[in-house]
Amino acid sequence: MLVGKVVGSVVATRKNERLIGAKFMIVEPMDNMAQKGRIIAVDNVGAGIGEIVLVAMGSAARIGCDMEVAPVDAAIVGIVDNSIGLMD
Amino acid sequence: MLVGKVVGSVVATRKNERLIGAKFMIVEPMDNMAQKGRIIAVDNVGAGIGEIVLVAMGSAARIGCDMEVAPVDAAIVGIVDNSIGLMD
Amino acid sequence: MLVGKVVGSVVATRKNERLIGAKFMIVEPMDNMAQKGRIIAVDNVGAGIGEIVLVAMGSAARIGCDMEVAPVDAAIVGIVDNSIGLMD
Amino acid sequence: MLVGKVVGSVVATRKNERLIGAKFMIVEPMDNMAQKGRIIAVDNVGAGIGEIVLVAMGSAARIGCDMEVAPVDAAIVGIVDNSIGLMD
Amino acid sequence: MLVGKVVGSVVATRKNERLIGAKFMIVEPMDNMAQKGRIIAVDNVGAGIGEIVLVAMGSAARIGCDMEVAPVDAAIVGIVDNSIGLMD
Repeated sequence: MLVGKVVGSVVATRKNERLIGAKFMIVEPMDNMAQKGRIIAVDNVGAGIGEIVLVAMGSAARIGCDMEVAPVDAAIVGIVDNSIGLMD
Repeated sequence: MLVGKVVGSVVATRKNERLIGAKFMIVEPMDNMAQKGRIIAVDNVGAGIGEIVLVAMGSAARIGCDMEVAPVDAAIVGIVDNSIGLMD
Repeated sequence: MLVGKVVGSVVATRKNERLIGAKFMIVEPMDNMAQKGRIIAVDNVGAGIGEIVLVAMGSAARIGCDMEVAPVDAAIVGIVDNSIGLMD
Repeated sequence: MLVGKVVGSVVATRKNERLIGAKFMIVEPMDNMAQKGRIIAVDNVGAGIGEIVLVAMGSAARIGCDMEVAPVDAAIVGIVDNSIGLMD
Repeated sequence: MLVGKVVGSVVATRKNERLIGAKFMIVEPMDNMAQKGRIIAVDNVGAGIGEIVLVAMGSAARIGCDMEVAPVDAAIVGIVDNSIGLMD
């Protein structure tokens, strides 16, 4: 997983029907993460712009968030409210 | 997922038979995305060259787009028509 | 898999309910690993900050650590106590 | 998926028995692809050295090419014979 | 898949119980491969330090090497003994 900041959102009116109702958030990973650059993640926890979040990628996003047959490869699965060593 | 622009397409006459009928689009991710450089994605929503699209990667592309047993690892699953913070 | 050092941890009070009880550790891969930069991995072996650990990524983390339906894409699955050629 | 050129092949006499009969081709992705550097892909369409091919990666290679229980993570699934915008 | 050289090994006494008996090898990919930097792969073919090997990554490592429920995301699945164009 990665930790990043929600910096925006994307709307797609024309889309795969299994994505209806999904909120697509733009997440900017923290600078020291392995993932360099933004990803689009479906919100699973009610995250808002500016919040620091935990993102799961790959099949974990679908299977772990009850979207097993949706074309989703990343999901926001937690709001980070405390950390040790995150910014070092 | 990532957001990118459809910049072209690829034709393969000789191919795995489960790919017959698939449209292979070349997608250039937006500059600030984690994915740096183009990918080939199967079109699931009727996207055309020049459109800004949402792409799902990995098993999500197959399973989410009813191509479960096809050798497909990326699919265009939405046409982006609005966004907040995408270009920042 | 990769070998890295546990350098911190992250707490998310608001999270996907299948993550309740999970410990999210920040792992910094060794310099010569393919993965450049930190990842967040769920602890499966009782690892502490400062320890050198083995991390499995992708579906292996979920399926191999009895978290099959949780949104987890990385897990600490061993504490490294000996090696040949790790630092070369 | 990615588009690349077949630039060589690899032989492994001692191997996992589910790989017996597989042809391992070395594929160099086109310069503007996200994948930077060569991968080894199992040939599924009779591709030869010098041909421009379409490669599927991850579980799609196994499941889409009837090698479901083989340790294969990339497969050549098409021979590219036409394209728009590939070289831009 | 990738081709690389076995450059070392790692021992983890405290580990996920499904990893008992597994040999963790450090593999350095050839310079021109897409994977830049070392990975840890479970040995499936009796590879030794110094040998040039074929490595499968992701779910292919687990499913293709009869470790379906183990937290393993990379496996050595062949010993390379011949090649065309590998070093170009």
